[in-house]
Amino acid sequence: MSASPGLPLDGLKIVELGHYIAAPFATRLLADLGAEVIKVEPPDGDPVRGWGSQVEGHAVWFSVHGRNKLSVTLDLKNPDDKAKLRQLVGRADALVENFRPGQLERYGLGPAALHAVNPRLVIARISGYGQDGPYRDKPAFGAIGEAMGGLRHLTANPGQSALPPPRCGVSISDDLAGMYAAMGLVAACWGIKGNPEAKGRVIDVDLVGSVFSLMEGMLPEYGLFGWVRQPQGAAIKTAAPTNTYLCADGKWLCIAGNSDLIFRRLMAAIGRPELAGEPRFVNNAARCENVAELDAAITAWTVTQQAAEAEAVLDAAEVPCSRLFDMKDCVEDPHFQARDLVMEVADPLLGKVLHPAAPFRFDGVPPRDMVRWTGPAAGAHNAHVFTELLKEATP
Amino acid sequence: MSASPGLPLDGLKIVELGHYIAAPFATRLLADLGAEVIKVEPPDGDPVRGWGSQVEGHAVWFSVHGRNKLSVTLDLKNPDDKAKLRQLVGRADALVENFRPGQLERYGLGPAALHAVNPRLVIARISGYGQDGPYRDKPAFGAIGEAMGGLRHLTANPGQSALPPPRCGVSISDDLAGMYAAMGLVAACWGIKGNPEAKGRVIDVDLVGSVFSLMEGMLPEYGLFGWVRQPQGAAIKTAAPTNTYLCADGKWLCIAGNSDLIFRRLMAAIGRPELAGEPRFVNNAARCENVAELDAAITAWTVTQQAAEAEAVLDAAEVPCSRLFDMKDCVEDPHFQARDLVMEVADPLLGKVLHPAAPFRFDGVPPRDMVRWTGPAAGAHNAHVFTELLKEATP
Repeated sequence: MSASPGLPLDGLKIVELGHYIAAPFATRLLADLGAEVIKVEPPDGDPVRGWGSQVEGHAVWFSVHGRNKLSVTLDLKNPDDKAKLRQLVGRADALVENFRPGQLERYGLGPAALHAVNPRLVIARISGYGQDGPYRDKPAFGAIGEAMGGLRHLTANPGQSALPPPRCGVSISDDLAGMYAAMGLVAACWGIKGNPEAKGRVIDVDLVGSVFSLMEGMLPEYGLFGWVRQPQGAAIKTAAPTNTYLCADGKWLCIAGNSDLIFRRLMAAIGRPELAGEPRFVNNAARCENVAELDAAITAWTVTQQAAEAEAVLDAAEVPCSRLFDMKDCVEDPHFQARDLVMEVADPLLGKVLHPAAPFRFDGVPPRDMVRWTGPAAGAHNAHVFTELLKEATP
Repeated sequence: MSASPGLPLDGLKIVELGHYIAAPFATRLLADLGAEVIKVEPPDGDPVRGWGSQVEGHAVWFSVHGRNKLSVTLDLKNPDDKAKLRQLVGRADALVENFRPGQLERYGLGPAALHAVNPRLVIARISGYGQDGPYRDKPAFGAIGEAMGGLRHLTANPGQSALPPPRCGVSISDDLAGMYAAMGLVAACWGIKGNPEAKGRVIDVDLVGSVFSLMEGMLPEYGLFGWVRQPQGAAIKTAAPTNTYLCADGKWLCIAGNSDLIFRRLMAAIGRPELAGEPRFVNNAARCENVAELDAAITAWTVTQQAAEAEAVLDAAEVPCSRLFDMKDCVEDPHFQARDLVMEVADPLLGKVLHPAAPFRFDGVPPRDMVRWTGPAAGAHNAHVFTELLKEATP
C-alpha cells in the first residue's frame, strides 16, 4: 500500500476534509501523482457515495473518484475524533477542504487551530464564492459557478431562444476549482520544502473565479472597447471554416479547416476544389465574411456521409476533424486503447471496472501503475491509519 | 522585476517554448504563482499575438496571457540562438513546450539533448494526442480535443437536431491541458527539490486525455452496464428542479432548487407553496419523475420577471440561482469587485486594462500584487535575459 516508486509526489502527506466533487477531485489528482491522501469522511460516508449508479451499495463513480486514497471515518463533532484529526494534521504536509466558509472554524478546526498543531501545514480551501466578499455565505452549486463565472452565457447557439443554453455536461466549475486547489497546494509545498523557516499557508480557491479564469481576452476587450462576447454556437467567429456538421446518420462531425493549406485540402476532399481558388475564399478573413456559403457547401457533402466515413475521408486528407465522441466511441477507439486512456482495473467491491488514465504521464511510469488501488469503502483504512500510521508518527 | 515576496514559486525558473494557448496558459499560471518564466518566441513573436483585437499592433488578450513573463526572441534554427537556449535551459528548473510531437527533436532539442545540458530539467510536453499512439502525428486543434475527449457530445440540448451542439465557448481543452501540465510540472519539481540524486523528468499531457479526465462516472458506468451518457441540456437528470429558465427580458436564470428544504423555499417564493406539499413532489426522486410539470410552474413565474428581479427574489429566499453572467455582468458585480476578481492594471502598451485575478489567492498576498507586470512585447527582455541573467548563470 505504498506509492509506486517514481511518482513525483511520493512522500507528500495530505488530509482531505472533502465532500462531493471539488476537494475530492483535487486530492484524487494528487493521489494519482503519488501523494498519500487520507480522506476523512463522516461515519455515514461522503454523500457523493450516494450519487449515480450503485452495485450492492457501492457507488460506481467512487471507484475512480476515491482511487489511491485511504478512507477513514471521523465524527468532527466528537472530541475524541477531533483529537484523532489533529494527530493526522500533525503528520501531514497539507489539508484540502470544501466546507462552506466558516464551517471548519465552527468545528474548532480553522486555519489558526490547525496551524497551532502544525505550523507548516498548507491548507487549501475550496468554496463557491471564496472565503470573503458579499456572496461568501450564499449556498453554492457547481451550476452556479458555471453561470456566474461567465461560461454558461457562452455555451449556446447564437440567437437560440426556445431552449436554454446547455450545461457543459460535467461539473466543470468544481473540476476547475479542484485542479487549481491541487496546483496551488503543490506550489505552496514546493515553496516550503527544504526551508526550515517557512510557515504553512492558506490558499483560497473559489468556483466562480476558477471559471472566470478561462475567459481569455474577453475581460480586457470589454474594458477597452465595451465589447460583450456573445455565444457563437459551434462556430468560431474569427476562423472559417470551423464548425460542426450534420452527417447522414444524424451524428455530428467537428471540422477545423480554417488554415489556408488545410482549407484547400478540405475543399478537394469534399469534391469542391474550385471553391478554394475563388477570391471570396482566398484567406481566413475573406472566408469569415462568406462563411454561410462555405458551411452550406460542407454540409451538402457531410449529409451524404456516415460520420465515421466522413471522418476517415478527411483524416486521409489531413484535415483536422472528429466525431463528437460518446463514451462508447472513447472506449472503442484504438488511440484510447494504445495510450491506456481507458484501463480495465480489478475493484474488490465492484469487479472489473474501467478507469481513465491520470491526465499526465511521467517517463517510466505506465498509466496502469498510477492506479494503485480503487476507491475504498468508507472507513476501510481506519485500523491501518489510526493504529499503524499514527503509531509511526507518535512513537 | 523580481517576484513578489510571499508567492509560493518564487525562485523557480521556467523556460517556455510555447505558442497559442496550452503551454502559454500553463506558464501564465506558474508565473502568477511567482515563478520566473522566460517565454522564448520566434523573431516575429508567438502567433497568438495576432489573435483578437489589437491596439497599435499590440494584442489585447496578450496583456493577460503574457503577464508576469519575460519575453525573449530566438530563431531555433540558428545555431547561435540554439546555444542561447541551451544556456537558458542550463539555469532552469523546468521547460514547457507544445510543439507537435517530434518538432523539438527535429530542432535537436529533444529531452535527451536538453537533459545532456541539464540532467535535472523537468520537461512538460503538451500535445493534442500525446507523445505516442496512432494519432500522435495528426494535426490537433482545441476543438478536436473537446470533441474526442467526450465533452462536445454532452454540451447539447437533448434531441436537438437542427443546431449542432455548441462549443464550450472557450478553448477548454487547451486550458485543461495547460493546467495539468502546470500541476505535473510543479509536482515533479517538488519531487526533485532537495534530493541531489534526483534526475529530471518528462511529462506527457494531451488535450484529449485532459478533457476525458472530467467524464466523472461515465466510463465505469459504460464498462459495467453499457450505458452511454447522453446530453441533458440545461437540466440534470438526477436532480429536480434544477434547470435554466427564461425570463421576461429574454435572459436566462439558472436555479438549483433540488434539495428538499430549498425546494420548499423556492415554491413559496414563486407563489406556489401548495406544490411543495404534494406527494408527487415530496422528494427528489418523485420530483425527477414529474419534472416537466415543475419546470412549467417555475417558468410560468420567471417569464413574468426581469432576470435580475427574479434573482433578487430567490436570493432573499436563499434559493441558489444565478443569471448567466456575461462580461458586463461580471465587471459590474459587487462580489467580483470586492474580491478583486476584476482589476484595473496599467499596461504600458495599452493603457488601463482590466485583468482577472489569479485563480488562487495565498494569505497575505492581495490579487493585485500577483500581477507584477503585463504581457510584454516580443523580445522586450532580450537584453535583460541574455546579458544580466545569463551573466549571473555563467560568471
